[in-house]
Amino acid sequence: MSEQTSPTATAKDRVVLAYSGGLDTSVAIGWIGEQTGAEVIAVAVDVGQGGEDLEVIRQRALDCGAVEAYVADAREEFATEYCMPALRANALYQGRYPLVSALSRPVIVKHLVRAARQFGATTVSHGCTGKGNDQVRFEVGITSLAPDLRCIAPVRDLALTRDVAIDYATKHDLPIETTKHNPFSVDQNVWGRAVETGFLEDIWNGPTKDVYTYTDDPTFPPAADEVVITFQAGVPVALDGVPVTPLQAIAELNRRAGAQGVGRIDIVEDRLVGIKSREVYEAPGAIALITAHAELENVTVEREQARFKRTVDQRWAELVYDGQWFSPLKRSLDVFIDDTQRYVSGDVRLLLHGGRAVVTGRRSETSLYDFNLATYDTGDSYDQSNAKGFIEIYGMTTKLSAARDARFGVGEAAALAGDQA
Amino acid sequence: MSEQTSPTATAKDRVVLAYSGGLDTSVAIGWIGEQTGAEVIAVAVDVGQGGEDLEVIRQRALDCGAVEAYVADAREEFATEYCMPALRANALYQGRYPLVSALSRPVIVKHLVRAARQFGATTVSHGCTGKGNDQVRFEVGITSLAPDLRCIAPVRDLALTRDVAIDYATKHDLPIETTKHNPFSVDQNVWGRAVETGFLEDIWNGPTKDVYTYTDDPTFPPAADEVVITFQAGVPVALDGVPVTPLQAIAELNRRAGAQGVGRIDIVEDRLVGIKSREVYEAPGAIALITAHAELENVTVEREQARFKRTVDQRWAELVYDGQWFSPLKRSLDVFIDDTQRYVSGDVRLLLHGGRAVVTGRRSETSLYDFNLATYDTGDSYDQSNAKGFIEIYGMTTKLSAARDARFGVGEAAALAGDQA
Amino acid sequence: MSEQTSPTATAKDRVVLAYSGGLDTSVAIGWIGEQTGAEVIAVAVDVGQGGEDLEVIRQRALDCGAVEAYVADAREEFATEYCMPALRANALYQGRYPLVSALSRPVIVKHLVRAARQFGATTVSHGCTGKGNDQVRFEVGITSLAPDLRCIAPVRDLALTRDVAIDYATKHDLPIETTKHNPFSVDQNVWGRAVETGFLEDIWNGPTKDVYTYTDDPTFPPAADEVVITFQAGVPVALDGVPVTPLQAIAELNRRAGAQGVGRIDIVEDRLVGIKSREVYEAPGAIALITAHAELENVTVEREQARFKRTVDQRWAELVYDGQWFSPLKRSLDVFIDDTQRYVSGDVRLLLHGGRAVVTGRRSETSLYDFNLATYDTGDSYDQSNAKGFIEIYGMTTKLSAARDARFGVGEAAALAGDQA
Amino acid sequence: MSEQTSPTATAKDRVVLAYSGGLDTSVAIGWIGEQTGAEVIAVAVDVGQGGEDLEVIRQRALDCGAVEAYVADAREEFATEYCMPALRANALYQGRYPLVSALSRPVIVKHLVRAARQFGATTVSHGCTGKGNDQVRFEVGITSLAPDLRCIAPVRDLALTRDVAIDYATKHDLPIETTKHNPFSVDQNVWGRAVETGFLEDIWNGPTKDVYTYTDDPTFPPAADEVVITFQAGVPVALDGVPVTPLQAIAELNRRAGAQGVGRIDIVEDRLVGIKSREVYEAPGAIALITAHAELENVTVEREQARFKRTVDQRWAELVYDGQWFSPLKRSLDVFIDDTQRYVSGDVRLLLHGGRAVVTGRRSETSLYDFNLATYDTGDSYDQSNAKGFIEIYGMTTKLSAARDARFGVGEAAALAGDQA
Repeated sequence: MSEQTSPTATAKDRVVLAYSGGLDTSVAIGWIGEQTGAEVIAVAVDVGQGGEDLEVIRQRALDCGAVEAYVADAREEFATEYCMPALRANALYQGRYPLVSALSRPVIVKHLVRAARQFGATTVSHGCTGKGNDQVRFEVGITSLAPDLRCIAPVRDLALTRDVAIDYATKHDLPIETTKHNPFSVDQNVWGRAVETGFLEDIWNGPTKDVYTYTDDPTFPPAADEVVITFQAGVPVALDGVPVTPLQAIAELNRRAGAQGVGRIDIVEDRLVGIKSREVYEAPGAIALITAHAELENVTVEREQARFKRTVDQRWAELVYDGQWFSPLKRSLDVFIDDTQRYVSGDVRLLLHGGRAVVTGRRSETSLYDFNLATYDTGDSYDQSNAKGFIEIYGMTTKLSAARDARFGVGEAAALAGDQA
Repeated sequence: MSEQTSPTATAKDRVVLAYSGGLDTSVAIGWIGEQTGAEVIAVAVDVGQGGEDLEVIRQRALDCGAVEAYVADAREEFATEYCMPALRANALYQGRYPLVSALSRPVIVKHLVRAARQFGATTVSHGCTGKGNDQVRFEVGITSLAPDLRCIAPVRDLALTRDVAIDYATKHDLPIETTKHNPFSVDQNVWGRAVETGFLEDIWNGPTKDVYTYTDDPTFPPAADEVVITFQAGVPVALDGVPVTPLQAIAELNRRAGAQGVGRIDIVEDRLVGIKSREVYEAPGAIALITAHAELENVTVEREQARFKRTVDQRWAELVYDGQWFSPLKRSLDVFIDDTQRYVSGDVRLLLHGGRAVVTGRRSETSLYDFNLATYDTGDSYDQSNAKGFIEIYGMTTKLSAARDARFGVGEAAALAGDQA
Repeated sequence: MSEQTSPTATAKDRVVLAYSGGLDTSVAIGWIGEQTGAEVIAVAVDVGQGGEDLEVIRQRALDCGAVEAYVADAREEFATEYCMPALRANALYQGRYPLVSALSRPVIVKHLVRAARQFGATTVSHGCTGKGNDQVRFEVGITSLAPDLRCIAPVRDLALTRDVAIDYATKHDLPIETTKHNPFSVDQNVWGRAVETGFLEDIWNGPTKDVYTYTDDPTFPPAADEVVITFQAGVPVALDGVPVTPLQAIAELNRRAGAQGVGRIDIVEDRLVGIKSREVYEAPGAIALITAHAELENVTVEREQARFKRTVDQRWAELVYDGQWFSPLKRSLDVFIDDTQRYVSGDVRLLLHGGRAVVTGRRSETSLYDFNLATYDTGDSYDQSNAKGFIEIYGMTTKLSAARDARFGVGEAAALAGDQA
Repeated sequence: MSEQTSPTATAKDRVVLAYSGGLDTSVAIGWIGEQTGAEVIAVAVDVGQGGEDLEVIRQRALDCGAVEAYVADAREEFATEYCMPALRANALYQGRYPLVSALSRPVIVKHLVRAARQFGATTVSHGCTGKGNDQVRFEVGITSLAPDLRCIAPVRDLALTRDVAIDYATKHDLPIETTKHNPFSVDQNVWGRAVETGFLEDIWNGPTKDVYTYTDDPTFPPAADEVVITFQAGVPVALDGVPVTPLQAIAELNRRAGAQGVGRIDIVEDRLVGIKSREVYEAPGAIALITAHAELENVTVEREQARFKRTVDQRWAELVYDGQWFSPLKRSLDVFIDDTQRYVSGDVRLLLHGGRAVVTGRRSETSLYDFNLATYDTGDSYDQSNAKGFIEIYGMTTKLSAARDARFGVGEAAALAGDQA
């Protein structure tokens, strides 16, 4: 611990707290202090969740008793270093969920650890409950970056229930609203938005309109929108010919695809902690980008590489969902994926309309699609005489197995042989 | 060869021909005879492709010179024994294509082999070219059921080009139209429809409206349609409470989802024969069913079983795409998949509208979703105190790796440790 | 709880205890009673670990205070229902460890649950510590068969240390030796023997001779031994032509392969609980059988089925190692594996000598090896003219990729193109 | 084609021939010339196969009519760039075969292409038959480095049988022995030796002693040998403390492990061309190195990374066996594997004796084995109280499945529940 960051001689323990500015974490500042005797440093990280200004949040933290407040605008960092790898992995957990919250946890963790180092804290604290994935993502993330730091979750470990929080805020006159009850539990960032609610816990109930914020109703869409996304090595670099950063690409497509109701997801998913839960997501930009990227891979990635990459992509999504962003396997999968993206460059034309994001055209200097091989027109360059030899050898092992089946009266080969009088 | 089926003493070789009733295969009857000296038996199999009556096709085959004509209505067989296993495997090649043609080839092959046995043929013939997947599916399929049969493809092996076919038909006055030129190459059955065309061979071109037959334009849909699909062990058994056979389920959803423009697919895909090709598909019923089935699996299949099944499903789709329906591995994957489907029973409510098929509700007697574990309400039965121990042990290997990274100055753990003055 | 099994009116809670007859579990009988107030039912299961007679163990349990003692000779059951599936899966965790302890836990668990049901117990207890795999295997196993039963581990949960145990035994004059200190921690059964020890915890130390019991020193072997193992559907049914049960096959090969020092394994392995540990195993019969079985698969299983089975076999071994014997995925993998074994029948000749188990011959009615295809002699039936077409199409995707590399100056294709002046 | 390399005006086509110096390829020089009218450039590459001096071979090629002869000592290149990646992948096809011939083909191919570029050839020729793997490895390799080059195989394509070759050599008085008949077909290099023979084509026959060259009989070994291999990032850098190059490491271990009869392999394997064949290999150095390397990975690679690497390693071995060394997927797997090897550094002590290569000790600065966590001694740092929470959550999904089984009367959970009166 350096001189500057802990000038006091009393050397109280210090806790870094993931701070949202809301009721629960505002109360947690004082609560942690009371329960543990430690000083609390509030850390607020902007990953595009919207809401209040960071400076407002910083001041509130201090007003609520934090000894320090660390705020960071991590939007570009999040888009570039977290969302883009997810895009290159076509990351969809269970084939559906673009890892919205699972992606933001590691970047927040990184700032928490940085703040802990900077302010000489020994403990990191977060606002998660004990039955979700996020507690695991926070704590495994922290332990993966700073094996020496301890973790504490006031809701789970210090009995900081909602009722306790409201009482505490009222009693201490904290500068935070306590009356508004949001029926939804929401987590959102630039890559998407996750919603849970008591109403949706009955999985036969459909989502109501008020669940959604990032997307308009696809039932009554505006006129169709068409966008050309230009990729360079698996990353979007232009929209309709206008250069964009990754953050701009996501934000712009959130807007345009969101207006068409693209990217609404309603699934029952398998949590890391062993239970199934019902989740509703909105991720218009992410879904539009993944749709375009996957099709550009179809055009530019060799078949066997593409087939194996599906297995890698699935494992990548599972690992990130499971809180293993900083794990050795995740990093090795990343270098595999990076190597496959060298040629994933070109344009994809995407039609956005009424909840649909549909590729209608693709072109690439690095395409493996070869018109002269593919065409059925005269003048093609494919030598059909090779086919017979290919089929004979390609089918050999199955043929030999079938002959055995017939010999032993097994399966369809034998049944059909029996037709022969 | 039995007495009944080859009464003649001359014992000419016999060829079984996959017969569609169209120009090319009608000409092939005579062409094969001329080129090889063999007798030709025409085999027409109805897999829901629509078009002419089987009896009309049978008569045409005989009129064109076939010594025998074998016709079979295989629609129920195809739906039950081929489409349902594909549904249980959520089979989408490259994550997109529901294997329309790839599924119909094996059932046609089975009838070809049955006809060959019945009529004492030594050779099987089909109308495919030498650069597509279907030649492989036919020939590997045949060799997998009847290793003793030979294969011949007039287009590929006997130089039966389109021009030759038209000349031949005119010269021999065959009872078949020769003038109509279809700009599209189409293959269709009850599970879907595949379209290729010169226009689409430029992969930047979008599909035009006339490409589609099974689906209406999703841009201007009728009022939203809602259907409840009841599954029993992974197979649809009722629609909106009315019992259905697999064939009825597919046909009815082709109609209702097709009216909403659901199931249009436009993709560059990797052919088995080594080239990439542009394909447009329509599979409204298949896409609706797979969407519902996959979500019911989310509710009823245990997590690790579901994760491994994704790998199995992918390999299943690759094998079937690659013409290995009758292979030993395919059959072993089938028994794996069957075992996972025991509890995939229940209702899924599906909203069909404007190209979208969206699950809005699911309920099942055999669900693994447990409201009492999942709810955030008070009174839940999940013991949160287990989480700390779980996280500690679950994160152990990554933590130990991170400590090593920090020790050796590698990676983010080391970079952040360096922040600590 | 039935009348017969709980005749008393007091209705004390009952705990079923996995009882070995040794010091720790003998003390646990009384210790659990004291600490929890429950009655203890001792359960001893013979899985071929040798040692004392079951009746002696039963009497000791009662003498130590058990209200009931349940003993079961489960050797045939263990060999047939647990070892044989492992053999069919060629199960070697990390490619080396034949799952000795991991296999016996589920069969013991089954008897524990059966005893709990029979005697109306609500809790199951075992002697494992809190840092090994076996606690997980026991408790996940129990919960997988009887979700309503609780688990308790006296060493982990009730502070029953070794010193406490010795004091307790002395004080209560229990009929069990307390002086002998075994330097090794050993678990053994018919499938093999596992040894851990303080000395081996320094992973640079080699095992000493006294570590081994099942195997003689391979350095000075007797004359070479040759055995012919006959398999039927993946299971040994005869040795040198003499019919055997699975248990007899394992026991006999333990003797013969053990005499040659076959099956010693020394490995650092990844525990489920997140740490690496050093383990020494002896499994002469298991290694001999797996060696022979794997080679018979080479002869009788089709290539693609065999390739995928490797992935399945690996996952199977991981699952069983990780205590998931009764899990849904394990059962689905079992049906896959069973389906691959239909033709794994025939004879394998195995040379056993000086630590080596080497296949020197194999023959099978159901072989896929075809001398006429494989031979380089004249008169072979393989048509070499197919090769050119096969190679052309098989190599197509890589060729197209290479042409792209050359075009963009990437990789070796480009480097070599550059050689061309 | 540059001025220097094709000075003649006649501009004959040129063929580069993979030249061994033996009868068949010596005859092929003239035979290709006669059959095709082309000039032949002989290319001889030393990959450690032993035999004659490269200069002798060069002269013989010229004497037999080659217009140019290109010879290259590629032993260091082969060891470093081909064998070391195989070692890092623990590459064993079907879990047994260390890819001896499959590894040497790509390095030979590279020199063939280099020679073709240097001497302006349009065609590459090799001596393989039409039923083996090597023709595929050569031709796919060539097409992967030089898509413009054609391939020709005189034995397969120009009817150059053994008898024809002997007649031709005699008639033209070629400077090569024609009388010696080797009963074995052999391919060898520094990584190992492959033997096929008519006698071994009966797969019940055991190998005879004269099959082996690289290894002495393990039945009567000399005194045991112990070697300490030092690895740096997965590559051997010292033996018994003496620095070595990769080539030296392999050669020295070929000698020392070979003297102990280590590395004899006898298997029935699945060829790429669809048939099973019986192969005998010797690879003492490769087996010793892979054994040591795999155990060092056990000590230094994190569990989940290690588990996934098994799948990658298997696919790597299949791809290389299948002739796809230069394919895009192979290269992406390489970067994955490289990333896992960062910490695979340290010493492994290997006991070599009587056919066995057994690890008896390992030590590493970068070990993940932690004595303080692993030890059962007092004073360990593992907190056992975490186990209960871990087990509860880890076993949750299986527990919920079991409860469902019991509810529906399925499986063992239900059977045992039924025991409860």
